[in-house]
Amino acid sequence: MAGAEWKSLEECLEKHLPLPDLQEVKRVLYGKELRKLDLPREAFEAASREDFELQGYAFEAAEEQLRRPRIVHVGLVQNRIPLPANAPVAEQVSALHRRIKAIVEVAAMCGVNIICFQEAWTMPFAFCTREKLPWTEFAESAEDGPTTRFCQKNHDMVVVSPILERDSEHGDVLWNTAVVISNSGAVLGKTRKNHIPRVGDFNESTYYMEGNLGHPVFQTQFGRIAVNICYGRHHPLNWLMYSINGAEIIFNPSATIGALSESLWPIEARNAAIANHCFTCAINRVGTEHFPNEFTSGDGKKAHQDFGYFYGSSYVAAPDSSRTPGLSRSRDGLLVAKLDLNLCQQVNDVWNFKMTGRYEMYARELAEAVKSNYSPTIVKE
Amino acid sequence: MAGAEWKSLEECLEKHLPLPDLQEVKRVLYGKELRKLDLPREAFEAASREDFELQGYAFEAAEEQLRRPRIVHVGLVQNRIPLPANAPVAEQVSALHRRIKAIVEVAAMCGVNIICFQEAWTMPFAFCTREKLPWTEFAESAEDGPTTRFCQKNHDMVVVSPILERDSEHGDVLWNTAVVISNSGAVLGKTRKNHIPRVGDFNESTYYMEGNLGHPVFQTQFGRIAVNICYGRHHPLNWLMYSINGAEIIFNPSATIGALSESLWPIEARNAAIANHCFTCAINRVGTEHFPNEFTSGDGKKAHQDFGYFYGSSYVAAPDSSRTPGLSRSRDGLLVAKLDLNLCQQVNDVWNFKMTGRYEMYARELAEAVKSNYSPTIVKE
Repeated sequence: MAGAEWKSLEECLEKHLPLPDLQEVKRVLYGKELRKLDLPREAFEAASREDFELQGYAFEAAEEQLRRPRIVHVGLVQNRIPLPANAPVAEQVSALHRRIKAIVEVAAMCGVNIICFQEAWTMPFAFCTREKLPWTEFAESAEDGPTTRFCQKNHDMVVVSPILERDSEHGDVLWNTAVVISNSGAVLGKTRKNHIPRVGDFNESTYYMEGNLGHPVFQTQFGRIAVNICYGRHHPLNWLMYSINGAEIIFNPSATIGALSESLWPIEARNAAIANHCFTCAINRVGTEHFPNEFTSGDGKKAHQDFGYFYGSSYVAAPDSSRTPGLSRSRDGLLVAKLDLNLCQQVNDVWNFKMTGRYEMYARELAEAVKSNYSPTIVKE
Repeated sequence: MAGAEWKSLEECLEKHLPLPDLQEVKRVLYGKELRKLDLPREAFEAASREDFELQGYAFEAAEEQLRRPRIVHVGLVQNRIPLPANAPVAEQVSALHRRIKAIVEVAAMCGVNIICFQEAWTMPFAFCTREKLPWTEFAESAEDGPTTRFCQKNHDMVVVSPILERDSEHGDVLWNTAVVISNSGAVLGKTRKNHIPRVGDFNESTYYMEGNLGHPVFQTQFGRIAVNICYGRHHPLNWLMYSINGAEIIFNPSATIGALSESLWPIEARNAAIANHCFTCAINRVGTEHFPNEFTSGDGKKAHQDFGYFYGSSYVAAPDSSRTPGLSRSRDGLLVAKLDLNLCQQVNDVWNFKMTGRYEMYARELAEAVKSNYSPTIVKE
């Protein structure tokens, strides 16, 4: 089963394991148990009224003498599409704006400073179809499209808004882009998906190319953030360059399905948090999206109209290898995490992966390795 | 608790979870359940007589038209030191040789083709003490030391033998080295630990420096292998370069303790198998080693005579994100895994991380990033 029936790993473990065993399992799987955040009752009431899950956890750091704690509250939003994929484009976008507005209001009640939505959040993940219209109509300007304007009314939050971008000023090209809007309401900038999949029904390479903006990091009032969009999660170098450029929190807005990737999901963003001494925030959509026309999947099976089950399970991972439980596999949700960014430098100073990283050696080896006449060191008898 | 009391994650889950939930947990945590290998009864009897755990699992690949399955059996050995660390050096080495010989004989019964021992397997992991004598007396020549000669009598197996190396021909320098001995008995070559920790009691930088042999890959009769020693596990670029150089199996002989790293252990080698479309074999020693003289740990706590608890839990991870359960946290053990190396290319062709890796961009960015005047892209309001 890779569908909605099974609620979450954590719920299952909590239900069946005796307490001492549960503690050991959590120690091995999650490093340590995080404190639950004491979120306002009105937030839980609103979440219940709007029918989405609300969870909150705190990551703590040691007290220092010279630096105060650098506290930031991040919000991760996962959701299904509220209207069917065959509804008119404008209606789908409006319905998504309304849905996210309701969740953002609860995030505001919880004191969220930086919020991130899922990949291509204003549309169904229609790239499986390989059809251009109507799906390309969901593309917008990153700088002043309706969704960016929507995100600018933002309760003093930094908003990370991953959309399908149309860059009309440069050849009308489409990109998979995340727009970063400052808590002041100004567009701070944008970043583009660096790695594009060609796997299963992820036919995204039909729509847009590999990002051309490198690895920008955004200095916000609450800390330095970067956005590694979806499939870039599988590329350790992508995480590394954001980290080398100074990111303390790397968001990973995604859209991925159970049959393909669910056993990779708990591994990759968490490994990136460990390897780079930073926080990572992995976000996945939920539900099954049905499309008007049938399509095949390159797997020899019959044509069908859905992409598979998006399993949610959004989570935050910390540099000390701890992580939050995942949000539900089936419900819309908001995960609030209180981070003390001092933890990044503290873990850096304990484990020293940057100091011991030998990047000069790798820059040299990688530069050799990409030459067409590169001959790797293979020792033979 | 981070000691011997809790046997293993898998044993705990098997004991408490109802079957349908257990299957879902395994699907999310391990990708899929592997078939148990049908190992010979005499092997189990010998393992029982010698008091070590024996487990075997098979990783399967799809059938192809043009290539036959490329089957290799790997063996991972984890063990405690059989004599106390204050026994005479020569006696400790002999006792370890005897212990490993008994385990290797069982591996031979199981048809193992490539066997790998734990890091610095001929000695207690004494680097915590920062004392030179007698511990440096455990160092040997990689080419013709007694341990290499021991490994050359090897039942038609390739042996990966991680030792403390003394390179007498080049300034009498010590290295943390793995010697690779062909199944013919010839020394195929050696590889050195590329990243040296400065964390907790891992005072290894007191004894040896970062390896100077790059990222060699060894072409054996059974497949191309590489060795990423211990702390190199935390460095995604180290795994990547072995993989770019063609490794299909990367061994990770380690020595690491519960209090420090147990929640990182299931993540890192497994992420490397996924990210690099190869098999990884993570090996850790077991037990608590007590040293003659007390030492402190830089954690403000009192002086003590042990390094902490080595939690075993050795496992094999596959490119498709599946993995074996871990060996016990407390017992010596041999893990046999039957691999079909065709799986590497098959997963490569599905997920395409090498094809989509954009290594030219990263070679360029990394070469910039290591310059002392590098100024990262940070977007400010």
